[in-house]
Amino acid sequence: MARIVVGMIGLGTVGSGVAQLLSQQRQLVLKKIAVRTLDKPRIVAAPCPVSTNVADLIDDPEIEILIEVMGGEHPALEYVLAAIERRKHIVTANKELIAKHGPALFALASEKGVTIFFEAAVAGGVPLISTMHKGLEATKISSVTGILNGTTNFILSKMEDAGVSYEAALKEAQALGLAESDPTNDVDGLDVAYKLSILSALAFGEFVRPPVIYREGIRKISALDIAQAKQMGYRIKLVGITRKVNKNQLDVRVHPMLVPLGHPLAAVSKHQNGVLVRGDLIEEIIMVGPGAGQMPTASAIVGDVVNLASALKLPDFASYFSLEITSNWAELVEAGQYSCPYYLRLSVSDAPGVIGRIGTILGANKISIDSIIQKGVTNNQASVAILTEEVLNSNMDSAVSELLKCDFLKEIESKLRIFRTESDA
Amino acid sequence: MARIVVGMIGLGTVGSGVAQLLSQQRQLVLKKIAVRTLDKPRIVAAPCPVSTNVADLIDDPEIEILIEVMGGEHPALEYVLAAIERRKHIVTANKELIAKHGPALFALASEKGVTIFFEAAVAGGVPLISTMHKGLEATKISSVTGILNGTTNFILSKMEDAGVSYEAALKEAQALGLAESDPTNDVDGLDVAYKLSILSALAFGEFVRPPVIYREGIRKISALDIAQAKQMGYRIKLVGITRKVNKNQLDVRVHPMLVPLGHPLAAVSKHQNGVLVRGDLIEEIIMVGPGAGQMPTASAIVGDVVNLASALKLPDFASYFSLEITSNWAELVEAGQYSCPYYLRLSVSDAPGVIGRIGTILGANKISIDSIIQKGVTNNQASVAILTEEVLNSNMDSAVSELLKCDFLKEIESKLRIFRTESDA
Repeated sequence: MARIVVGMIGLGTVGSGVAQLLSQQRQLVLKKIAVRTLDKPRIVAAPCPVSTNVADLIDDPEIEILIEVMGGEHPALEYVLAAIERRKHIVTANKELIAKHGPALFALASEKGVTIFFEAAVAGGVPLISTMHKGLEATKISSVTGILNGTTNFILSKMEDAGVSYEAALKEAQALGLAESDPTNDVDGLDVAYKLSILSALAFGEFVRPPVIYREGIRKISALDIAQAKQMGYRIKLVGITRKVNKNQLDVRVHPMLVPLGHPLAAVSKHQNGVLVRGDLIEEIIMVGPGAGQMPTASAIVGDVVNLASALKLPDFASYFSLEITSNWAELVEAGQYSCPYYLRLSVSDAPGVIGRIGTILGANKISIDSIIQKGVTNNQASVAILTEEVLNSNMDSAVSELLKCDFLKEIESKLRIFRTESDA
Repeated sequence: MARIVVGMIGLGTVGSGVAQLLSQQRQLVLKKIAVRTLDKPRIVAAPCPVSTNVADLIDDPEIEILIEVMGGEHPALEYVLAAIERRKHIVTANKELIAKHGPALFALASEKGVTIFFEAAVAGGVPLISTMHKGLEATKISSVTGILNGTTNFILSKMEDAGVSYEAALKEAQALGLAESDPTNDVDGLDVAYKLSILSALAFGEFVRPPVIYREGIRKISALDIAQAKQMGYRIKLVGITRKVNKNQLDVRVHPMLVPLGHPLAAVSKHQNGVLVRGDLIEEIIMVGPGAGQMPTASAIVGDVVNLASALKLPDFASYFSLEITSNWAELVEAGQYSCPYYLRLSVSDAPGVIGRIGTILGANKISIDSIIQKGVTNNQASVAILTEEVLNSNMDSAVSELLKCDFLKEIESKLRIFRTESDA
């Protein structure tokens, strides 16, 4: 049996897992590993030569598949482009790279007749990409909605389970190595935005330029929000959505949402990821599994390598694996052009008629109230929780700006979207 | 672009959906449809000649792929074998056929160099088979656990939501066309057993002879069981399990279980299916989606046909698609050699010391009690609900036979297994 020769750039946690799994694959040979620096302690003894000479690896004509697990934008981009130029197939877990440079990378790969596999880049342990690419062949996907970041999901789960603040939960996540010392990428939704760009390409054929994706993170979520949501039958999750609005436009967002407790996405806990795919024929499919972690991610990478290697034994395999992705960036709808129900929590002065005035302002902005609860009064101040019916986002924005002008309003404590189980939003 | 010519046997609900979807696929041509009888009313106008002449279809050298959607064991088996003999690839939704004759069918297909695709046979709309086959390439699967029958799931959901009896919920399912007039296949777990045979082949490489699979249906579940389970934080589901116990043996069962309300499988409602795959590297992955239905099933079939057709344009595609399935039937562990926690509900006479005697009998059989609740006494009779810790199945059997000999015992009203979220059972 012919063996396929593989090279790898990067030997951190995931890379070590990949090296270990590759040694169990008889049809694959890991020939060379390139790393940034040799003086870092390594988890495993490498099964092959390790050097800092990336060029030697990329120029090796025997290597047919390059595994890129160094992460980050640069120099990963330059290395991957150089490898594609030399007609090597790429397997990567690098979501930032694929999300930011997908159009250029896939255009070059198509020109050179090679393939880029990236199962590990989104929802590490969940075989989401092969499912969307092969398993849903005959379905037209209308939206992909997911809990795509394990760090924020851990923080929100912790806040609920232990009743602690965002800051306390973040500290614990940092202590456990689940969040970085600068948690911006996770808690402000940037990581999810990268994944949404990739999911958009898979579902609709076009990447989305990450900076134009609407982002709202979890820094402002309070333990009280979580407790009150639970009382009302909801759990707060950081949700990412990409949705086809019309022939040319997508609606792509990441923000916290209330998910009904009975819904499978509400049960996605701790470091798990969960993804809901809606399509014209399949209604909806939900996949839940480990979002990251050494071995789930390594397993996804090696799965890609094995599938690629099997295909490499065929002549014209490229057409079989081709992803129909254009080299254009996708166009987005104007922000505010989608609707969903909302949860609002306001601090107001405890004066007669305040509920009525809130109701009038919401009504004037075409917002119907589903329920409204006034809570305990302290220092002449009351807390009002409101669940609305479905609201156009721009209408909610103008209601909020009107509320902010009112003398009775102390603060808008929360404004959260409610996840609808039955439709795309 | 070369077009692939396809034939179909069967034109019922699913077949009509397939015909409709195939007409949208430009690289496919549906040339002939064969049916049992021409005097049945059809849902759609067929897009090609329809006859009762199956031989004419099977002998047509132009047809490369045969879609079998007639269902049932005979004559589907004879038709499919004849088509494989003539080197046609098969796409089928027929779980009974695959489960009962998998070893023979795959052995012949391998001999003739053709492929059998059957994505629609298990969990119709959930792309489970392509996920297990391609997406989890590098993972060693340890168990597959699922809610695999939409009819029983509908009945159980209905019993909970409306608080009605099994009989009333079954009648409603029959009225809605979700259950057949003889519901045996569904409610006694036979349909799930077929699917478990197929899932065993995918996960472990061997089919399981359906009659040797342990089966317990839902006929005995009462509205009270469901209400009490809910009070304790559980929902009752009909669960199928296939699990690798050791190198040569599987543990394969279908029976009702209590699933914790917070678990994603508890959220699988109505006609949905849900599957949990555990593996050495992936921890667990859960997929939830439509279990059946015309278009989800038709979409799975056409997805298979499209994937096959793409591959047919390659020369030696068969090796790429080969499923590593032996022609042997799998060996099972002895019944009783697995363990899980249990829920017991007993009617007992209301006499002093009864709880103590129950506890003694359970203890003597190595059964630890997690909680025990005695409920309202009527006519000198009390109801006792017990949650146990993990129990070896054979120990539970002997405890039950000892309890049955006791004078205080009126009846064992329920004996249900509890789903453990953290391990294989």
